[in-house]
Amino acid sequence: MNIAILGAGTIARKMAQAINGMDSAKLYAVASRSLDKAKAFAAEFGIPHAYGSYEDMASDPNVELVYIATPHSHHFEHMKLVLEHDKPVLCEKPFTVNAKQAREIMELAKQRKLLVAEAMWTRYLPMRSMLDDILKSKTIGDVQSLTANLGYEMTQKVRLTEPALAGGALLDVGVYTVNFALMVLGDAIKRIDSSVLLTKTGVDAQSSTTLVYDKVLAMLNSSMMANTDRRGMIYGPKGYIEVQNINNPEYIRVFDPVHKLLKELKQPQQINGFEYQVQACIDAIETGKTECPQHPHAAILAVMDIMDELRRQWNLRYPFE
Amino acid sequence: MNIAILGAGTIARKMAQAINGMDSAKLYAVASRSLDKAKAFAAEFGIPHAYGSYEDMASDPNVELVYIATPHSHHFEHMKLVLEHDKPVLCEKPFTVNAKQAREIMELAKQRKLLVAEAMWTRYLPMRSMLDDILKSKTIGDVQSLTANLGYEMTQKVRLTEPALAGGALLDVGVYTVNFALMVLGDAIKRIDSSVLLTKTGVDAQSSTTLVYDKVLAMLNSSMMANTDRRGMIYGPKGYIEVQNINNPEYIRVFDPVHKLLKELKQPQQINGFEYQVQACIDAIETGKTECPQHPHAAILAVMDIMDELRRQWNLRYPFE
Repeated sequence: MNIAILGAGTIARKMAQAINGMDSAKLYAVASRSLDKAKAFAAEFGIPHAYGSYEDMASDPNVELVYIATPHSHHFEHMKLVLEHDKPVLCEKPFTVNAKQAREIMELAKQRKLLVAEAMWTRYLPMRSMLDDILKSKTIGDVQSLTANLGYEMTQKVRLTEPALAGGALLDVGVYTVNFALMVLGDAIKRIDSSVLLTKTGVDAQSSTTLVYDKVLAMLNSSMMANTDRRGMIYGPKGYIEVQNINNPEYIRVFDPVHKLLKELKQPQQINGFEYQVQACIDAIETGKTECPQHPHAAILAVMDIMDELRRQWNLRYPFE
Repeated sequence: MNIAILGAGTIARKMAQAINGMDSAKLYAVASRSLDKAKAFAAEFGIPHAYGSYEDMASDPNVELVYIATPHSHHFEHMKLVLEHDKPVLCEKPFTVNAKQAREIMELAKQRKLLVAEAMWTRYLPMRSMLDDILKSKTIGDVQSLTANLGYEMTQKVRLTEPALAGGALLDVGVYTVNFALMVLGDAIKRIDSSVLLTKTGVDAQSSTTLVYDKVLAMLNSSMMANTDRRGMIYGPKGYIEVQNINNPEYIRVFDPVHKLLKELKQPQQINGFEYQVQACIDAIETGKTECPQHPHAAILAVMDIMDELRRQWNLRYPFE
């Protein structure tokens, strides 16, 4: 399948490496606002077509799937552009900056019978099924609680601190913690409690969120102020599971109640992990689906709704909202 | 110094082992409501005096310090009894079941010029100073957040589930998480947010608490429903610190921002760790102090006030309150 990459930054490079290692996908085009940048990117990754305009790329009839790798402040605009040119979309996370934008995009994709998917890559990884199997085995009993954290010192990054760019740690890294909770526990959340510390610019510098389920607590934190250990921990009456890490799972460890290691599952051989979400999109498109079963629209929306609710609790509205 | 142990349960045994390994302290007496139990305990640990009455033990003029090892529902009553017999006290954690009781006991001790201390043993351990040194070195920069958890599957323990026994995970294990936060961050807390799930009997089965400081978040959780990893994690812009574990520190690890291990400090050679709090009490008594500088009354009260506030948020009042 012919893949085009929209955007030519760090995450686009990682995707280019993945696709170049795949048999079922081929890098067909790259587009950047700067043609020079697109050409350099194309040369580096052996991509036949370089565009200096997103619209020109989206108009190319040979493009079969567009991966959107721009900052999340622009996901809505770029997904809309691509869908309106009748191309399926795999968009970097977070899908959009709020649930309203997400619903509009999904509606558009549905009308046009096009796939639209979020590149929340941890949803598509083999380690996710491995984790599901451990949970189903009830080795640790019924899950009672989980914790997940993700933080990096990123205070110098303007896209993180600027409200106009939909800044804040939640949308950038917190989205992984919410996804982790929902992957393990589903979305039957009874109440959301949170605490936040804001930057001087008014976005969330760090936050603590508890998703209260009927009988389970999910305790999440995200930060642009500090480097955290990125662990996901899942606790039960018969032991616990450690996922290291929720941003890029390297291993899963299972412990018994007295902290003895019962089992360790390592990341299987892979290109760089990005290939699974691409393959999921290819499979979905080839079978006429408009969403990926690994991460359906309802799951994307559940996360977006939680992030909306958190920002509501924090009185954090972006200027364009 | 002649030490008497009030109570003859599991924690009393651990203390007896510690004191039997010390030069500066001597097991002089043990008291239990059951004389048989006291005698068996005395025989096992080579203690010369066994009492079947707490009052008789407290009246013995040769007793120089009483360690109270009864369930926390009885700490207030037993500390009062001992102080009224003019003996210094080291009482198991939590000090009392609420701050009102704690203040009354401290007032009584002050009037009588007697030491009263809480056996929150982690406050007295050498690893606490080691942690302080790492924090002061600013290897990880200024602390931005921390997490701490402590949980065991303990739903079958009546003292945990009964409101009349001041049950709930918070007082039993959560007290360690609050102490960990306050040891690292102090008590200048701006706001406390929390979520709780209650048992059928109406006490906290598990909870999530965020202590919101001016620029720092402390995220704590405690549980009687699940076994947790017991880690304390301290996050900064230049790396993070792992304390394994907050209940019984075995090691402290320091990581850089890219998760490389910089340093590991192991628990030094010790009897079982309980000896440090006993030595602190001996030192305090010998220098005429009524509190231990390692864990002064203000620190005990700060923890009790937080636990009171949490129970207020949860509408959890014990029947005797």
